[in-house]
Amino acid sequence: MAEIDEESHVCDAAVTLAFSVLGKRWNGMIVSSLGGGPSTFVALRRGVAGISDTVLSDRLAGLAEAGLVARTVDAGPPVTVSYALTDSGRGLLPILDQLGTWASANLEIRAR
Amino acid sequence: MAEIDEESHVCDAAVTLAFSVLGKRWNGMIVSSLGGGPSTFVALRRGVAGISDTVLSDRLAGLAEAGLVARTVDAGPPVTVSYALTDSGRGLLPILDQLGTWASANLEIRAR
Repeated sequence: MAEIDEESHVCDAAVTLAFSVLGKRWNGMIVSSLGGGPSTFVALRRGVAGISDTVLSDRLAGLAEAGLVARTVDAGPPVTVSYALTDSGRGLLPILDQLGTWASANLEIRAR
Repeated sequence: MAEIDEESHVCDAAVTLAFSVLGKRWNGMIVSSLGGGPSTFVALRRGVAGISDTVLSDRLAGLAEAGLVARTVDAGPPVTVSYALTDSGRGLLPILDQLGTWASANLEIRAR
């Protein structure tokens, strides 16, 4: 009856899984920022323009739970905490690069 | 003074631009679902498990504004409205496939 095949529109489970992490605002940008190497909280907050302390803290906890980011405490003194990508997180970097290339070619920068 | 190079953590502008679209929940899944070909609203809602009518409607309008999705009205009768990826939207599909492959290898499926 329908001309449109409904079966073909079921969203792929693996893509759904990817966006359970990347569909959360800021997560892709945080991973991309950490592509530059281990970072402190403050450096990350400066690198991801517009994010608040509370949200960055929440996102880092979520990315750590998902296994993309590792948090390391150096006893110091002074005590320092740093964040770095795990192997899993680093695996995203070449794909984020491709997304950036696609965006540069296809999206316009808009005022918010 | 700092051991961490702050410059290297500025999130890439192109990646930021990509996540202005993909960092919005559901958008990646909607594009992936439309990878199966043009679809009706109802078929899309079934394909993207868990999305509400209101949110799907909002996201389709946003994706159309961003140039990833085209809306076509067939005068009928009956009048039918269908949604399809543009060339720009189709350009995302191979990257979404890679994200899915990465997710399958690196993320665990969790109960919400």
